[in-house]
Amino acid sequence: MDRVQPGHHTVRGRQRQWTGDNVSNILKEPKVDNRECLLMASPDNIASARAHSNIAFIKYWGNRNHKLRLPANSSLSMNLADLHTTTTVEWSSALTVDSLAINGSPAGETALVRVRQHLDALRRRLNTDLRARVDSTNNFPMGAGIASSASAFAALTLAAVTACGTALDERELSTMARLGSGSAARSIPPGFVEWRAGDSHESSYAETFADRDRWDLVDVIAIVSRRHKRIGSSAGHRTADSSVLQPARVESAETRLRAVKIAISERDFERFARTVEEDSNLMHAVMMTSNPPLFYWQPLSLAIMESVRHWRESDALQVCYTLDAGPNVHCICRASDAPAVAAKLRAISPEIDIVQSRVGGGATVIPVPVSYRARLRVS
Amino acid sequence: MDRVQPGHHTVRGRQRQWTGDNVSNILKEPKVDNRECLLMASPDNIASARAHSNIAFIKYWGNRNHKLRLPANSSLSMNLADLHTTTTVEWSSALTVDSLAINGSPAGETALVRVRQHLDALRRRLNTDLRARVDSTNNFPMGAGIASSASAFAALTLAAVTACGTALDERELSTMARLGSGSAARSIPPGFVEWRAGDSHESSYAETFADRDRWDLVDVIAIVSRRHKRIGSSAGHRTADSSVLQPARVESAETRLRAVKIAISERDFERFARTVEEDSNLMHAVMMTSNPPLFYWQPLSLAIMESVRHWRESDALQVCYTLDAGPNVHCICRASDAPAVAAKLRAISPEIDIVQSRVGGGATVIPVPVSYRARLRVS
Repeated sequence: MDRVQPGHHTVRGRQRQWTGDNVSNILKEPKVDNRECLLMASPDNIASARAHSNIAFIKYWGNRNHKLRLPANSSLSMNLADLHTTTTVEWSSALTVDSLAINGSPAGETALVRVRQHLDALRRRLNTDLRARVDSTNNFPMGAGIASSASAFAALTLAAVTACGTALDERELSTMARLGSGSAARSIPPGFVEWRAGDSHESSYAETFADRDRWDLVDVIAIVSRRHKRIGSSAGHRTADSSVLQPARVESAETRLRAVKIAISERDFERFARTVEEDSNLMHAVMMTSNPPLFYWQPLSLAIMESVRHWRESDALQVCYTLDAGPNVHCICRASDAPAVAAKLRAISPEIDIVQSRVGGGATVIPVPVSYRARLRVS
Repeated sequence: MDRVQPGHHTVRGRQRQWTGDNVSNILKEPKVDNRECLLMASPDNIASARAHSNIAFIKYWGNRNHKLRLPANSSLSMNLADLHTTTTVEWSSALTVDSLAINGSPAGETALVRVRQHLDALRRRLNTDLRARVDSTNNFPMGAGIASSASAFAALTLAAVTACGTALDERELSTMARLGSGSAARSIPPGFVEWRAGDSHESSYAETFADRDRWDLVDVIAIVSRRHKRIGSSAGHRTADSSVLQPARVESAETRLRAVKIAISERDFERFARTVEEDSNLMHAVMMTSNPPLFYWQPLSLAIMESVRHWRESDALQVCYTLDAGPNVHCICRASDAPAVAAKLRAISPEIDIVQSRVGGGATVIPVPVSYRARLRVS
């Protein structure tokens, strides 16, 4: 119900009005001939999309196929309404190379290479050899454990497909986003999202498990460090199998997935907290016992984790923690408890910044931002 | 060669001179009829023993049989020369209950109950129903992750057996000590010690793997907290099987045991460091994913661990860390590097106290301390 915000996007040189609020509007359109993208190439093959970050309750760590990013286990997350990436893609015959700007500046080589690889995959699917100008803006710090690659590759995928005048259904958008960044698969559908591991490109996609109004959870993120990760997630996933603990984590993931789905369905916070913390601890256990060992926790992360357990067990505050591949501590609680959790976090250390988010919707096509056109005119 | 310091101990009312320096002197004596202990009961059935703490390189965590403390996996440690417990046991028909003093004060109920259970096991083996006065003194803080129970139950076992006029060989002393505290089995033999898991009371014992002069390692212990553990090791061992990771840790322990034995034999510090840190991380991974989760690391522990890795990888200082069921960080290095390691640890935080120890010998019978007799005269 919240997949597309009403608005405009531009395809093949004309404005098209979205009147619905669901990406299934796209799905119901007859698929266009993908070769059209090439034939219709013009400076107006442009579209913008917005996708939200997500926080996993059952983690994705390790792949059964690295090239296709087929994950070792199914995972489950909630989208984060207030943390998003807005990406504009313009396919143009006037371009000889893909270009990438992040937050208004030309991207570094590492990001550019990864985006070009993803554009290559999209070009194959869209049957085009046009090059793209990509402009991506996050409203949150990158590389500090808030999954910027998830929202970035989800927004990039939707914008690129839409700018090409092509309509893919949510499932295929999710599979395509997955090729760029595994967790991006989960930033395509809205609400509480399950990514089914699958065993092929087509069968490994995410879909909504529960609408975002199922439970008024909030992610109160304690920002411990804004430094970039020394070892990013993509490299990290490749180390997972070097831990003797990874098979046991993977084999037991289905059990935790079921438990967290029941907990969300029944709004059972105690079961939710126990399962989410266990799953986070298991992923970090694998990370710390990999070769080389990956320690994402910082001393302050550990202090916050201990505090969260204490607040829940001794202060009867319904809150639990989960950490991605970074030092920031995501404190999950009910919306009514979020101010108390934020205040307690600030009291631990003045070094802790707080970012909060409610449950978010899916990736949506949005009007091309005025700022984007303004930047183009200047450059 | 260093198992017994020359000295005196008193058995059955007479002084006996130890001229050798090896506990095998005891072993070569014909076994006495154990009922003799009962028959010869007198206020002079008294002996003292000293045993060293040990630090495990391959950890003991979890039992296949809790009552017998048959461990889930074999383990390997080095004795710590400078951290020891001195225990005097006096069997007496004048006593109606066992008594226990620790560091000069009557012990609390928990310690008393555990020591009485061990004395019950010893009474069964020694075929006596005499009660014992036990006086135990540590030269290091208890309950802060330095294994005081290892040295305590090793010293208690040797003192109790000797005071009864009984001679048990090293292997049986190790099995008996194990009944009191698993890691106490490793504090009976000298030097670098392997505890073979075994599958019965008789087959689960420790023995020297390498003499203490094999490698001049030092344990530079960063004392992070002197607070008592909230969850002691004995309770912790019972939670190990609640972690889905424990089977993988146990199954892979033999591989690490072999690696660390090769590393010690060849004095290969890089292999040693990698294996010892991995094994410590694996044990804490199991702890943190148990039900309830056990977090022994404190923020400062984590900071020290990260520093140690950095010193080794960037500063080429040969040092690695290992942590027992507590927050203190045992930094293992060559003797020549110990001053540098201690200085670097102190520079991390003024909160860190340092305790150092070289490789130690085995449990030894020592003369009954004058202080013990003095205390008895006063009381």
